Amino acid sequence: MAENLIWTEPNDQEVLVRAEDLHNYVKRLYISAGVPKSDAETMAKLQTETDVRGVHSHGTRGAPQYVRRILKGQTNPTPKIRIVNEGPAFTVFDNDGGLGHLGSVRAMESAIEKASDNGIGAATVIHSRHFGAAFYYAMMAAQSDMVGFAVSSSSPLVAPFGGNACVLGNNPVAYAVPADEESPLVLDMATGMSAWGRVATMRLYGKKLTPNWVLDKNGNPTDDPHEADVLLPFGDAKGSGFGIIMDVLASVLPFCVATPHRHEEYEEQRNSSHFFQAIDISKFTPIEEFKAEIDRMIGTVRESRRRSDIDRIYLPGEIEWLKKEAWLKSGIPLHKTHVESLEEIAEELGVSEKLIVGPSVASR
Amino acid sequence: MAENLIWTEPNDQEVLVRAEDLHNYVKRLYISAGVPKSDAETMAKLQTETDVRGVHSHGTRGAPQYVRRILKGQTNPTPKIRIVNEGPAFTVFDNDGGLGHLGSVRAMESAIEKASDNGIGAATVIHSRHFGAAFYYAMMAAQSDMVGFAVSSSSPLVAPFGGNACVLGNNPVAYAVPADEESPLVLDMATGMSAWGRVATMRLYGKKLTPNWVLDKNGNPTDDPHEADVLLPFGDAKGSGFGIIMDVLASVLPFCVATPHRHEEYEEQRNSSHFFQAIDISKFTPIEEFKAEIDRMIGTVRESRRRSDIDRIYLPGEIEWLKKEAWLKSGIPLHKTHVESLEEIAEELGVSEKLIVGPSVASR
Repeated sequence: MAENLIWTEPNDQEVLVRAEDLHNYVKRLYISAGVPKSDAETMAKLQTETDVRGVHSHGTRGAPQYVRRILKGQTNPTPKIRIVNEGPAFTVFDNDGGLGHLGSVRAMESAIEKASDNGIGAATVIHSRHFGAAFYYAMMAAQSDMVGFAVSSSSPLVAPFGGNACVLGNNPVAYAVPADEESPLVLDMATGMSAWGRVATMRLYGKKLTPNWVLDKNGNPTDDPHEADVLLPFGDAKGSGFGIIMDVLASVLPFCVATPHRHEEYEEQRNSSHFFQAIDISKFTPIEEFKAEIDRMIGTVRESRRRSDIDRIYLPGEIEWLKKEAWLKSGIPLHKTHVESLEEIAEELGVSEKLIVGPSVASR
Repeated sequence: MAENLIWTEPNDQEVLVRAEDLHNYVKRLYISAGVPKSDAETMAKLQTETDVRGVHSHGTRGAPQYVRRILKGQTNPTPKIRIVNEGPAFTVFDNDGGLGHLGSVRAMESAIEKASDNGIGAATVIHSRHFGAAFYYAMMAAQSDMVGFAVSSSSPLVAPFGGNACVLGNNPVAYAVPADEESPLVLDMATGMSAWGRVATMRLYGKKLTPNWVLDKNGNPTDDPHEADVLLPFGDAKGSGFGIIMDVLASVLPFCVATPHRHEEYEEQRNSSHFFQAIDISKFTPIEEFKAEIDRMIGTVRESRRRSDIDRIYLPGEIEWLKKEAWLKSGIPLHKTHVESLEEIAEELGVSEKLIVGPSVASR
C-alpha cells in the first residue's frame, strides 16, 4: 500500500546511506570548496533533509554542480548577503551571487519576523542561485506556527497552454501549513508537469516518462526522457496561468526580468531570484484551534470515499513525511551514480574519504 | 479566431442588454429589497462588471438568489461591517451576515492601504455570504499598482485527488497583476475543474460537459450536467493540493472551519469567509519598469510557438478583457432565462419595470 510509494522496488542500482553520514560528507565538500563552516552546515542540512523526504532531484545530487560553479567562479562561496531595501512588513535581500539556499534562509527568517510583528511578512532575494527545494523555506514558517509560501525563478522550460516552446519557468512553489498531531501540510511542486530534475531521474533509471508531460524539441509529444525538451504546464489553462503569476512573484517582482527573458544570463543559474511570505496565524484565529481544525481536515480528506483503484488518499507532503520516518531508520536509498558523482567531486576537491554506504536496496 | 471565444454562436436563446441598463435594473432590485443605495450601487457595479467580462455564472444571474436570501432573513441587508482585529499589516472584518461583496470591497481596500504602508497587507472577512467573482477584488489591487490575491470559502463540491466524494471546496481564487499598455493579467479560477455555476450554465444551454470534469452521485464519470454531483479538482494531485491550501487560507485561517466541515451551516451560504492580500510592487522594484516587463512578458508568451490546432495563445484574463471591450459596445449577451429570472424577482419586489433588452444574438 503506502509501502510502494515510499520504497522503490528492491533493486541493485540503489544503496542505503545514513542521513547523518550523507550530511557530514556533503558538509565536508562545501568546506573544501571554500564555503564557511556554518554555511556548509546549512547547505548539508537543507540538502540532506530534501533527500530524506525523497526529493532527490533537489537534494545532495545537486551538490557536485553547486561546487563546480563555485570552482568556476560562477557562484560566490563567501557572499556578503545584505538588505537593500526594507519596510515594516517586507525586506529585499541581495545574495551577492552566493548559494541560493543561504539568502533564502535569511529571507524566510525575515518574513517570519515581520509577520510576527505585523501579521504578514514578505521578502525577496536577488542576485541569487538555485535555491534547492522550496518546501524547506515554507516549512520554516510552519514550524513558527505560520502559513509559509516560497517560489523561485527558473529557466524557461515550460510551454504556456496552447504553446509548444520553452517560454515559461518551471517555477518551484511551496506552501506549508502547521497541524497539531498530524504532520504539517506541505505542498511542494513545480508549475510544469514535473520538476526537470525528475526527467533527469528517469534518464538515470532508464525509465519512460508519463505521456503528456513533455514535448520533444519540435513540439511533439514524447515519453522518452532523453528526447524531452519542453515541459507542459500542470493543470492545462489554469495551471499555465498560475505558472505565469508565480513567475511574476519570483522573477518580475524581485528583479524585473521575467523567465522568458532570462535565457542567456540564467544558463548558469546566475541571477536567480526568489519570493517568500509568512502569515502569522495567531493574528487571525487562535492557533490551537487552527491546528486542531487542520488535523480534523486532514482526517476527513484521508477517510473520504475513494476511487476503487486507489488504496489511500494522501495529503500534500504526506508521502514525503512517511519516507522521512522510514528512511531515517533504514538509511536513504541513493542511486549509485548519485554516490559516484559525490565521490568524484570529493576527489577533485582533494577529499580522499569515500561516502559510507550501507547495503544495496536489493537486499531489503 | 478570437471571435469564437468572445461570442457564442448566433442563437435565439440570448438577447443583448446594455451594461448601463443592466446596472440600473439590478441596483433598483437591491434597493427594493432594503439594501442602502450606496451598497446597491456597489452590488450592481460588481455584478455588471462580472457579466461584461463573460463570467455570467458569478454576475447578475446571482442577484435573484441574493435578494431571496435577504427576503428570507438569511442575509442581512443593512450589515454593520466592523473590524474585530487589526495590526500594522492585517485586518479581520466581521461582515455581520451581509452580502459578501460589501465586506470584501472593504477588506481589499484595507489590504491595499496596509500594503501601501508596510509593503504587503492582508485581510480576512468572517460571517459573510457569497462574494461573487474573485477577480474584482484582485483587480482593485492591480488598479493600485499592486499584485492582488483573493480567495473565498466554498461549499464542499470537489473530490480530492484519488477520491470521488464532495469533500474539498471549489474555492474561487484570483490573482491580478498590473501591466502598462497591455491589460492587467487576471487569473480567476475555481480550484475544481469548473465553477459550479458553469455546470448550471451548461444545464441552461442544454450542453454536455467536458469529459473528466465531473462525477455522478455514485462517483462515476459523466458528461451530463444534470447528473453532475462531484467536481474533480483541476490539475490532478497538484491542483488537489493547491485546493486544500486555498481552503486553509479562505476557511480555516479566518474562521477555523474547513470546507469539509461546513456542509450544514454553509447550505444557505451562511458563514462564508474570505482572504485578501495585496503586495505593493513599488517597495520591491520600480513600478514603471515592472509594468514594462509585464508588457514584454505578455508579448513573448502571446507570440511564442504554438500547437498547430491553436490559433492564438491567450494570457490569463485576456479573453475576458476582449469580451468587455466588445460587449460594452454591442451589449452583453444574456440568456433569456437569466432576463426572466431578474424580471421575476422584480415582480416579487413590486418593481413593475422590465429590463430594457436589445435584439437577440441571432440577429448579429
